[in-house]
Amino acid sequence: MTGQRQVRDAEGWGAVNPGAESRLIEPATAAHWPDLWTIVEPIVRAGDTYALPRDLRAEEARDLWLAPPPSHTAVLRQDGHILATVRMGPNKPGPGSHIGTAAFMVAPAAHGRGIGRELGQYAVAWLRDRGYRGIQFNGVVQTNHAAVRLWQSLGFTIVGTVPDAFEHPEHGFVGLHIMFLPLVAG
Amino acid sequence: MTGQRQVRDAEGWGAVNPGAESRLIEPATAAHWPDLWTIVEPIVRAGDTYALPRDLRAEEARDLWLAPPPSHTAVLRQDGHILATVRMGPNKPGPGSHIGTAAFMVAPAAHGRGIGRELGQYAVAWLRDRGYRGIQFNGVVQTNHAAVRLWQSLGFTIVGTVPDAFEHPEHGFVGLHIMFLPLVAG
Repeated sequence: MTGQRQVRDAEGWGAVNPGAESRLIEPATAAHWPDLWTIVEPIVRAGDTYALPRDLRAEEARDLWLAPPPSHTAVLRQDGHILATVRMGPNKPGPGSHIGTAAFMVAPAAHGRGIGRELGQYAVAWLRDRGYRGIQFNGVVQTNHAAVRLWQSLGFTIVGTVPDAFEHPEHGFVGLHIMFLPLVAG
Repeated sequence: MTGQRQVRDAEGWGAVNPGAESRLIEPATAAHWPDLWTIVEPIVRAGDTYALPRDLRAEEARDLWLAPPPSHTAVLRQDGHILATVRMGPNKPGPGSHIGTAAFMVAPAAHGRGIGRELGQYAVAWLRDRGYRGIQFNGVVQTNHAAVRLWQSLGFTIVGTVPDAFEHPEHGFVGLHIMFLPLVAG
């Protein structure tokens, strides 16, 4: 039994995510970038889930997404295809660096297969294992209901909502949730 | 009557801030940096109000504090001495860029003279004049009571508090408030 399989059993991933057995989460490298950009670019251009410049250039996106340690980026592959990616690390420097954060991008064609959940669990485990005391999301778009529900199902709560802080291409000004998951007993 | 005096009268600054008449708020330039660093450095090194690396180098601090447009940095001078500084601009890029943010540093020796309030009013006016729809502070240290009260007196509310998100050198893990001031009618 591989270590990876053990993790899956411990988390029950195989049971809740049919098909997860053929998936692999591994650290991202520069060699992944061309494939990653095909996932990142349409999400950035759509401008409905992330407060990033919609005209972000590929090299800016690469520097942002493949940030050096202590940040960490992973890709989720299935049958050799990269379907999703997550970037994690400290949310703030210095006296705020014990709180982690993470950002997720899943190829639209791969939605609905539990991939966001799998990457979310990976990020929570990665940050917990490195001693982070909590995970903060700085701006979950209020209308991104699937994301809000997913994070809530992983234990995150909405700490607060900044009203009208995100200009959604269809819904206009909508709120941004700050969400938080403690990783140590209060 | 100068434009500056008119602004002061309109805001009532002269009345609430005795001594403010001899103060001048002006855009910061690279030439100000040596003086600015004498204010910024002890605040960064103390590590009790900002989530910045306590070992931040001068050139990193300069790039951070004197960020290019659309960010804007100002200094407050009195009798030729720089006593405080504020940096403002968009809080997030892209679909979040209509919300502003600001960071303030006041020389400890100049506390208690209404300088934070004066710079706060300046930042609110600057961001409002440029069409920002609100101002978000991403991490006001919970134990920085003077700052919390000041922003509340200017109309900011605490949207939420991320528990234990700041490691204070004396108080240990304390919360970070997200504070918000709407600049347009909801």
